[in-house]
Amino acid sequence: MKVKITGTGLYLPPKVETSREISMLIGKSEEWIIRKSGVKERRVSEIDVDKMGAYAGNEALGDGPLPDLIINASGVPKQTIPDTSTFYQKEMGLKGIPSFSIHCTCLSFIAAFHTASSLIQTKAYKKILIISADRGTRGRNFNEPESASLLGDGAAAIILEPCNSSDSSKLMYFKMNTWPEGAHLTEVRGGGTNKHPQDPETLISDNLFTMDGPGIYKIARKAVYKLMLNTLKSTNLTKEDIDLVIPHQASGKAVEAYIETGGFKREKVVNIVSKFGNCVAASVPMALVKSIKEKKIRRKDKILLIGTGAGLSAACALLRY
Amino acid sequence: MKVKITGTGLYLPPKVETSREISMLIGKSEEWIIRKSGVKERRVSEIDVDKMGAYAGNEALGDGPLPDLIINASGVPKQTIPDTSTFYQKEMGLKGIPSFSIHCTCLSFIAAFHTASSLIQTKAYKKILIISADRGTRGRNFNEPESASLLGDGAAAIILEPCNSSDSSKLMYFKMNTWPEGAHLTEVRGGGTNKHPQDPETLISDNLFTMDGPGIYKIARKAVYKLMLNTLKSTNLTKEDIDLVIPHQASGKAVEAYIETGGFKREKVVNIVSKFGNCVAASVPMALVKSIKEKKIRRKDKILLIGTGAGLSAACALLRY
Repeated sequence: MKVKITGTGLYLPPKVETSREISMLIGKSEEWIIRKSGVKERRVSEIDVDKMGAYAGNEALGDGPLPDLIINASGVPKQTIPDTSTFYQKEMGLKGIPSFSIHCTCLSFIAAFHTASSLIQTKAYKKILIISADRGTRGRNFNEPESASLLGDGAAAIILEPCNSSDSSKLMYFKMNTWPEGAHLTEVRGGGTNKHPQDPETLISDNLFTMDGPGIYKIARKAVYKLMLNTLKSTNLTKEDIDLVIPHQASGKAVEAYIETGGFKREKVVNIVSKFGNCVAASVPMALVKSIKEKKIRRKDKILLIGTGAGLSAACALLRY
Repeated sequence: MKVKITGTGLYLPPKVETSREISMLIGKSEEWIIRKSGVKERRVSEIDVDKMGAYAGNEALGDGPLPDLIINASGVPKQTIPDTSTFYQKEMGLKGIPSFSIHCTCLSFIAAFHTASSLIQTKAYKKILIISADRGTRGRNFNEPESASLLGDGAAAIILEPCNSSDSSKLMYFKMNTWPEGAHLTEVRGGGTNKHPQDPETLISDNLFTMDGPGIYKIARKAVYKLMLNTLKSTNLTKEDIDLVIPHQASGKAVEAYIETGGFKREKVVNIVSKFGNCVAASVPMALVKSIKEKKIRRKDKILLIGTGAGLSAACALLRY
């Protein structure tokens, strides 16, 4: 599908929380945190996801014409109803632009990229703004040190448009799978009809993030490896043809797996988890937008967005930038 | 976009709650409720949205081949993470099928229908299962009689596939607009990062459904009327060419407006709100699937799905069935 990223935006909350600082809150040493999660520091946002996303969205838009669709592609919403896309639009001072959310937790951006490409290919829309903004630190359970030390806050946005006849940009390949046997490995059980906040049986911990790190890693590592091999096979490419791998920043170990198990060269695998933590759905677009801004990505480069998300799902999108 | 509905499913919870029964809970008479909301009775589900949606999904699938994508198009999720689509898949005994959610409250099904049509048109998927399941009665605020008397539970599902060369089925037209100045007219303020359940300031009412009925009606009536006129103009059709109007079942008054203001003949406007209440995102597909099952819709009929949702958004999809 012939689509092109024509704008990018990033919002990194100014407040830095080091792993030394969080060590007191979770009763583990700084060394334990860095060894377990790979996170040295993370950002903690003092503004909510709508404002975070609007900063990134406005930067991506710049002075250009308005988008004709806004997609929110985040892990956790601002509130149950209405969906966050309308709050981005409100904060950006826009009105009348159709907007909705695509949600599959950490893979929301990758799924939204594919869906938006399809909507552009069929000429349903001409300029789509995709925003991912997550504030995982609001859902940290300090009694679960591993996940509490992983989460960080951030937002990123891109503009997707059709290609001109001279452009070679495209979405070359997309693949996703969901295995519901892993549904309970990563959860926030509250917030919906399951463990409703008004129910006396709903515990505080039901409203906080919980994950079975080793359980996920066991399924995810194999699933992602297979996905990567199939992607290369289906596109007739080798690992050497991929210019940059942008994995979901699930943990330091998860990012390392693309090098150790995946066999990609270290310099080709983007790691922002050590500085920003796991920013849920915002991790992939943050790493993508940072790489574009730092000129690690040039036009015609082949970029592999890949990762796993709660579900348990695995997905990848291979782009020619 | 040449797509065809090839399967339908419906789940109507067996437990009926009459407006006489609810009148005691909200301190208003049965007559008041029927006059205000237009709802004589609604269903109250004793199973959660994942099981409700799985019943509808299984019926839509029948003995046919499995779908290659499952989209959850509901208003309120089972829980914050993972998204509800994975829980449908779990309840249906499936695995490996990519799945995600599309969310724009009451318009989720209409937006998902358009998105799925686009994904089929670009050959990204060949058989998409769209499920809407809502259990609005879990979020009723009995101190807000009008909205509490409106909400009901239900689920519906459709299968969408590409057309054969001999089929004339298609999505003829789609349009959506979102006006964030109406974001606070319909809300569940809790459940996300805004009014987090762990915050001491979060009130029980923040986790329940709230709406400003007259405020919505004032914006919505005009917006929907304009949308309808533009749809007819853009497709070179007249009201008489539309075989059936399937409005979102927001309230009795909202459905009546398609007759009184919209000028459609009464027999062409589907009303299920009096028997099932406002089932959030499930209302439109429930009314569509019921009409198909009751043979009120035949192949080649032109069907207008239309309505408003929290956001505030308005959307319509014109199908040739």
